[in-house]
Amino acid sequence: MKILVINPNTTAAMTESIGAIAKKYAAPGTEITVCSPEWGPRSIEGHFEEQIAALATIETVVRYRDDFDGFVIACYGDPGVNACREVTDKPVLGIAEASMHTACLLGHKFSVVTVIERACALIEDGVKRVGLSDRCASIRSTGMSVLEIEENPQQAVVQMVEQGRLAIRDDGAEVICLGCAGMGPLDDQLEEQLGVPVLDGTACAVKMLEGILAYGKSTSKVRAFAWPEKKELPGCSPLLQSVTSSAD
Amino acid sequence: MKILVINPNTTAAMTESIGAIAKKYAAPGTEITVCSPEWGPRSIEGHFEEQIAALATIETVVRYRDDFDGFVIACYGDPGVNACREVTDKPVLGIAEASMHTACLLGHKFSVVTVIERACALIEDGVKRVGLSDRCASIRSTGMSVLEIEENPQQAVVQMVEQGRLAIRDDGAEVICLGCAGMGPLDDQLEEQLGVPVLDGTACAVKMLEGILAYGKSTSKVRAFAWPEKKELPGCSPLLQSVTSSAD
Amino acid sequence: MKILVINPNTTAAMTESIGAIAKKYAAPGTEITVCSPEWGPRSIEGHFEEQIAALATIETVVRYRDDFDGFVIACYGDPGVNACREVTDKPVLGIAEASMHTACLLGHKFSVVTVIERACALIEDGVKRVGLSDRCASIRSTGMSVLEIEENPQQAVVQMVEQGRLAIRDDGAEVICLGCAGMGPLDDQLEEQLGVPVLDGTACAVKMLEGILAYGKSTSKVRAFAWPEKKELPGCSPLLQSVTSSAD
Amino acid sequence: MKILVINPNTTAAMTESIGAIAKKYAAPGTEITVCSPEWGPRSIEGHFEEQIAALATIETVVRYRDDFDGFVIACYGDPGVNACREVTDKPVLGIAEASMHTACLLGHKFSVVTVIERACALIEDGVKRVGLSDRCASIRSTGMSVLEIEENPQQAVVQMVEQGRLAIRDDGAEVICLGCAGMGPLDDQLEEQLGVPVLDGTACAVKMLEGILAYGKSTSKVRAFAWPEKKELPGCSPLLQSVTSSAD
Amino acid sequence: MKILVINPNTTAAMTESIGAIAKKYAAPGTEITVCSPEWGPRSIEGHFEEQIAALATIETVVRYRDDFDGFVIACYGDPGVNACREVTDKPVLGIAEASMHTACLLGHKFSVVTVIERACALIEDGVKRVGLSDRCASIRSTGMSVLEIEENPQQAVVQMVEQGRLAIRDDGAEVICLGCAGMGPLDDQLEEQLGVPVLDGTACAVKMLEGILAYGKSTSKVRAFAWPEKKELPGCSPLLQSVTSSAD
Amino acid sequence: MKILVINPNTTAAMTESIGAIAKKYAAPGTEITVCSPEWGPRSIEGHFEEQIAALATIETVVRYRDDFDGFVIACYGDPGVNACREVTDKPVLGIAEASMHTACLLGHKFSVVTVIERACALIEDGVKRVGLSDRCASIRSTGMSVLEIEENPQQAVVQMVEQGRLAIRDDGAEVICLGCAGMGPLDDQLEEQLGVPVLDGTACAVKMLEGILAYGKSTSKVRAFAWPEKKELPGCSPLLQSVTSSAD
Repeated sequence: MKILVINPNTTAAMTESIGAIAKKYAAPGTEITVCSPEWGPRSIEGHFEEQIAALATIETVVRYRDDFDGFVIACYGDPGVNACREVTDKPVLGIAEASMHTACLLGHKFSVVTVIERACALIEDGVKRVGLSDRCASIRSTGMSVLEIEENPQQAVVQMVEQGRLAIRDDGAEVICLGCAGMGPLDDQLEEQLGVPVLDGTACAVKMLEGILAYGKSTSKVRAFAWPEKKELPGCSPLLQSVTSSAD
Repeated sequence: MKILVINPNTTAAMTESIGAIAKKYAAPGTEITVCSPEWGPRSIEGHFEEQIAALATIETVVRYRDDFDGFVIACYGDPGVNACREVTDKPVLGIAEASMHTACLLGHKFSVVTVIERACALIEDGVKRVGLSDRCASIRSTGMSVLEIEENPQQAVVQMVEQGRLAIRDDGAEVICLGCAGMGPLDDQLEEQLGVPVLDGTACAVKMLEGILAYGKSTSKVRAFAWPEKKELPGCSPLLQSVTSSAD
Repeated sequence: MKILVINPNTTAAMTESIGAIAKKYAAPGTEITVCSPEWGPRSIEGHFEEQIAALATIETVVRYRDDFDGFVIACYGDPGVNACREVTDKPVLGIAEASMHTACLLGHKFSVVTVIERACALIEDGVKRVGLSDRCASIRSTGMSVLEIEENPQQAVVQMVEQGRLAIRDDGAEVICLGCAGMGPLDDQLEEQLGVPVLDGTACAVKMLEGILAYGKSTSKVRAFAWPEKKELPGCSPLLQSVTSSAD
Repeated sequence: MKILVINPNTTAAMTESIGAIAKKYAAPGTEITVCSPEWGPRSIEGHFEEQIAALATIETVVRYRDDFDGFVIACYGDPGVNACREVTDKPVLGIAEASMHTACLLGHKFSVVTVIERACALIEDGVKRVGLSDRCASIRSTGMSVLEIEENPQQAVVQMVEQGRLAIRDDGAEVICLGCAGMGPLDDQLEEQLGVPVLDGTACAVKMLEGILAYGKSTSKVRAFAWPEKKELPGCSPLLQSVTSSAD
Repeated sequence: MKILVINPNTTAAMTESIGAIAKKYAAPGTEITVCSPEWGPRSIEGHFEEQIAALATIETVVRYRDDFDGFVIACYGDPGVNACREVTDKPVLGIAEASMHTACLLGHKFSVVTVIERACALIEDGVKRVGLSDRCASIRSTGMSVLEIEENPQQAVVQMVEQGRLAIRDDGAEVICLGCAGMGPLDDQLEEQLGVPVLDGTACAVKMLEGILAYGKSTSKVRAFAWPEKKELPGCSPLLQSVTSSAD
Repeated sequence: MKILVINPNTTAAMTESIGAIAKKYAAPGTEITVCSPEWGPRSIEGHFEEQIAALATIETVVRYRDDFDGFVIACYGDPGVNACREVTDKPVLGIAEASMHTACLLGHKFSVVTVIERACALIEDGVKRVGLSDRCASIRSTGMSVLEIEENPQQAVVQMVEQGRLAIRDDGAEVICLGCAGMGPLDDQLEEQLGVPVLDGTACAVKMLEGILAYGKSTSKVRAFAWPEKKELPGCSPLLQSVTSSAD
């Protein structure tokens, strides 16, 4: 079972730490490869970067679609996940959706603790898209950027514990989802301090993807995620063009 | 990793076929045990049987809570699942919630195809409890009872294909969830005929539970699913009494 | 008109005080009988106790289904109410649903003030099941257990007034529903101090049930609450078995 | 206990038949008076008539607010009900809200069968205002006007049975609410033919109001339904002016 | 293009200031006329005044329906807007709905800052009717009456800035809608101090109405807003009677 | 007032017809420029093309952000609209959101009639993002691709009339939104045949944008749509890089 974990951010250190988590929790028979797109933002904190990263991620899935059994998109905006579901018949999971679905099995309500304030709006739309608004107690910001968290993890822990505690005490959260792939390595520390399950999306997605692959299932191709229609894509990269030139 | 799959129905043949599926999809290192409670309804099609089965299932979890790493409740009403989350600190998954969460990762909308009409109301409440009403295209009845499906699987396939096709064509379903644990063995035949992913909840729950265990997570104990309060349960079985007599 | 009020808790003092309220507000022609099941938890504060009490309550309804014209389930989790609707063709009302429906006729939004924090999650699911989440301003905990309230009603009043005031001031509540049958005797004191309608569910349920009976209506038996299907219930009490052995 | 039932339509025959139902189901100690406003539409089928009738109804409540213990507004648009709650401290119930709340205690889902198609939009907004959209299976039109139903009740029964059957079979309705006060006298015939509870809103409202009065409750006056602010109402009738001239 | 802006309040100074705003933002080719009904409340802060103003506003639209190309109802309760849509085939817009729709194009979430607390309940129902509850961050009260704001605009600015800042900081609002037509003249001052778009509903409605007229569209007359049915309106004003006497 | 209308599809004929509509309905003082990105899909019918077009559209907005007063994105998926809101402080409107908001002012419910079936899922998510699911009666497919509609408009009219009629008769639609920019030129024919308002999103967006500009408002920059954070975008086009290199 070969899984490609794509970090839509082009920051090598983050890609590395995401890969470490994915490998740490992967089953014995799972071969994890981690990569980031060849181009795109160093970090994703708003719609602009998300849209760039989405296309770069889609291109990455196309590039490797014959080489892996399934794909994980390791950014909490799940950039491009639905488009990726169209360009391959292998399953594709975003870490936000995976962590939210997992959280619902472990507690009555979950909260997401994330980076700077503006990301909360993005994640709120994500929760609505997934359909789990009723189960989401709150989305809270640490006020730190993705790269600040990467560079200063101990400060990040302090902020995240503070927001996590407020989520548990004031919002009724019972599970905390880490709202940024870069926060993954902090999950154990946080869980110890908060006393509730703290979920890293990458770990959740790898485990759910292994399960889906072992069960022999993949994306439904009858409607929303059918193969793209055949059409021209003038000016696009050969990889992207390969998707719709050969479609029938 | 030891998982107990509980069939809340006391029909031995169904317990056996549920066990067969659980074992078929379990990972190499997973040890599956299947059982049904010592008492309770032969099949579950309404609120009355569900409440009986819920208590019998809770008792079963209590009985074996030291012997397994996690529990699957293999009936599409998820009877007693939240109470079971209180009586153990090991994760407990219902097959309905597990199949719905899985379905959301494979298609834009899912439908549930189930037994007799009255079960649709129960399942509709279940979807609302899980919080995924927005992702559920429809809940459709085959008009067959649990035991009729068990006894006449080929007739069941005919009915289920018919309802599945209507769900896909008229309701926008892209994934079909089998709304009864007893339908599990039919998933491959149905998938072949319907052309969309067909999900058996037992398989979904086993895979998600394996993932949660491998990731080292379990139910949050801070609020909704905290250990039961210490109190007397006059007239209840010693097993049930053991839960709240020793609580602190 | 004969109404059976069932206290799903097996605490005699609480049963007595519930009966007193039911009788206090019953119409002249109404004969109120109050009882609790022969077995089950002393108090209900979580899913575990609720599931036990649900079955004990169902059994109680079965036991007396020929002797009364309607039934009230006097616990704010409405334990087993839907199953009870199946085993009799007389109307069955839960006090939570009755108080919420009544509250909607008296104010724009209602809040529920209840016992310990964990009960809030249960009640939140109850509000969702009833379908009135849009009208519910908040669910607030006094931090006191059912039995503490029973034993120390004046301390309970202090806590309830505090939470009620916060609900009115911060959450926009205009009506307060007492989220525990044991709080019933405190309604007048609370109403005086809070200046808004304070509703005891037992009183609401008795009045609504009298109205439904006088109007000659009962539970619809065509789908969700049809008589249980005929089937075996091995190991269950003769009373429970009588339900499905004689079903046709 | 004195209840004023107001028919917001100025059609004497309809007022009479509404009064007959109210009296038929009233408790022994209840004194029912029925009236219609002194001005306003013969029947209400759209927003225009509803707004006229709302004001005429409010004026009627003001006129008689010292003479009765509670008020029922007997038109399925509940015209002016919230404003009426402001001008008196006695409880005021609309028949639509009363029938929907009652329906939720008797079945899993209810449908409303009403007059001409345009009324469905009005009623849909009413269900949303009450907050019970999740429990409403459908709103169906008979295609007959209020006065056609009044004049040709047997034709109305035929149409209503047809729509009721479709609601039960196709929409999952278990209870039928009569979506026009004028349909009230047909409830027994319909119930016999449809085999599910058929609810007339006037009967439901009278019974719920009796219950609320017996329980000693009334509208919350702290926020949405507080007494109107003191202010001038130039050009309005003396009755309306009396409301805000004396306010403090 | 001739637009009639109706101030449902009968306070001349407010009508004048509403007219000033409407004219300030109107396009060169637009002729704005402003008026208030000949009768009705000096200000609108509750359901009672709203119902009176609704009928007075409808009558005003009927009076002038041949003289204008479109109508704006300049009160944040949108009194009578749906009925007005029935009595003319020209477009009719309420300022609340217009400002909410505009706000959704300028920010992720909007809040409404309004007059006294009781109005919040009315506006909350308005947001639900419009269907934009998901986009509404909060509805906040300044604690000032309509006429206090009119008389003491600088005090109003202080209160509105305070509530606006709380909405932005605590509720996630990105746009502020002024929840009273009388607040319109303060929009520039508020926007300068709050740093987010501040929307006056009258301006929004005039601009959207100009757009709809220029695009050649008007209210759909097939169902909810069809012309009123022909019928008698005994005791009503000749203007109101003219609506349904000539209907076919 | 200078407005740039961007057709995210790179099909020159469609860009031309979109431009014709925009100019037809633009106000006298408005200068409309129409363009399509320099690269990207010929047409957009799924998530894959939408993601490509989103980035190409964002780049186009960046390229021209100093040259126009506002931007319209003329594709019914509103590709990249939120990201575009970040890269400029001029208002940006998508045609889907503009047509839905307009529809809500003209009827009680709207339906969208669009291209091939798979687009319905995309649009359903769009309606949810806009927040107007409660006002949307249905989303219906003509079964024709974007380019088939472009090439065979008369066949398109036939299909669209059929789906529009079903939406009106069966789903309760009162307004029809054209769910593809390429359908715009057909709006008059359709409106004549369907008898309800038929809305082309481009026209709606141009008119709403003119209104917003005349009112002097633009996107809120405090949270969700703040300027992108300063960061590196390795491998991205100089235009995209210019956005975050100069950010502060």
